[in-house]
Amino acid sequence: MNLIILEPGEVGDAGLVSVSGTRAAHLLNVLNVAPGHQVRIGVLDGPRGVGTVQSIAGGTVSLRCALESNIPPRPRVDLLLAVPRPKVMRRLWAQIAALGVGQIILTNAQRVERHYFDTHILAPGTYRPLLVEGLQQARDTRLPPVSIHRQFKVLVEDELDGLFDRGLRLVADPAATTSASVAAAASVEDRALLAVGPEGGWNAFELALLESHGFAPAGLGPRTLRSDTACISFLALVHDAMKSHV
Amino acid sequence: MNLIILEPGEVGDAGLVSVSGTRAAHLLNVLNVAPGHQVRIGVLDGPRGVGTVQSIAGGTVSLRCALESNIPPRPRVDLLLAVPRPKVMRRLWAQIAALGVGQIILTNAQRVERHYFDTHILAPGTYRPLLVEGLQQARDTRLPPVSIHRQFKVLVEDELDGLFDRGLRLVADPAATTSASVAAAASVEDRALLAVGPEGGWNAFELALLESHGFAPAGLGPRTLRSDTACISFLALVHDAMKSHV
Repeated sequence: MNLIILEPGEVGDAGLVSVSGTRAAHLLNVLNVAPGHQVRIGVLDGPRGVGTVQSIAGGTVSLRCALESNIPPRPRVDLLLAVPRPKVMRRLWAQIAALGVGQIILTNAQRVERHYFDTHILAPGTYRPLLVEGLQQARDTRLPPVSIHRQFKVLVEDELDGLFDRGLRLVADPAATTSASVAAAASVEDRALLAVGPEGGWNAFELALLESHGFAPAGLGPRTLRSDTACISFLALVHDAMKSHV
Repeated sequence: MNLIILEPGEVGDAGLVSVSGTRAAHLLNVLNVAPGHQVRIGVLDGPRGVGTVQSIAGGTVSLRCALESNIPPRPRVDLLLAVPRPKVMRRLWAQIAALGVGQIILTNAQRVERHYFDTHILAPGTYRPLLVEGLQQARDTRLPPVSIHRQFKVLVEDELDGLFDRGLRLVADPAATTSASVAAAASVEDRALLAVGPEGGWNAFELALLESHGFAPAGLGPRTLRSDTACISFLALVHDAMKSHV
């Protein structure tokens, strides 16, 4: 936890906040704070800042917050992901939030099993704390919105332009002749949307539909990767390639 | 499982092999094989090839193997990793094998907790099947050797040159002024060794010792990543940057 994230409603008028539970345990047992110590804090979807420990009582730590005036920018890369197995999805939430995504668009596809949608892994009560864990790791405060789409065709044809109106669109494709890094570096766009298919890949219809809606095939190297490893690699490569963009 | 991996001793003189357990279950329940069907196979640390289903009896599938004459090259990137938390290390084995590592060098460091070494996650009986799982995912056969070093200074000063004699050495460092991709692309070496520190980072002594033994600091972007996310990103960036090398 490299940043203690506070919910907007937790911070009182005078910048005072009391934390307990996991965050207090981290402050007390990992950072070994005492009154007067300063720790990095951030308000969810708000500014970062410094919290000065005012008092410790029981398992509760009181902090006085001094917040920066600006809010961290939203990450410039969005993710469109065919829902993977629940075990893989569970591992992925914190990691994609740490790497930085502007939003997470989850979709059905032919090779997504129907029961993947019925799992609690896709419930906000499960994923929100995991996303916050990733933000705390990466010292970010911008919680990526998550949308879940059970109809791939409706998503791509009718909804996607509303979610991502302008920018580079790439789809990870083992048959691509251009690598993700080259495609991203060559683009002048300041935002990117990366599509990662299900285990077993998109079917031909899905890939053609994505390509007809502006997604260029992008390669992640010669090795076939599991959905989570592919997401992380793809995000790392495109963030790196776009770092010098506007 | 994109490749069924066979142990060298399993394949008989006439190229016949019988598999049961997980591999047979995959053949029968996921690939739905029948006699005459062909599947991708590979011999551990040996060639890849094609297996033709001869017969199915009970839970056992018999295959006749036709192997290629050459063995896949060893991945050109090695990993030097300060042992992470057991839960994180468990997740990492298959993913680093899938991304491709020539060898895995695990080390102690000041911020590695002593009990991390006492876990079964570092026992060959645990990690070997996970590495094989990663190879099967990536269609590789080259099992990366693993060495475990409890004395960081002895490793870096006395043992490392024997393990990795020549090539680019990079250490992930948030303070680096050069990114991993730029450092790897600028190198003329055909092998690289990537060092990833513990949660909380290397201490100053450790980082100085690595740098005095040829490791150049390399950045993975502005966000602080968990050990496993950092490993995957680092491997993805360097593999990608080195792909046009010799």
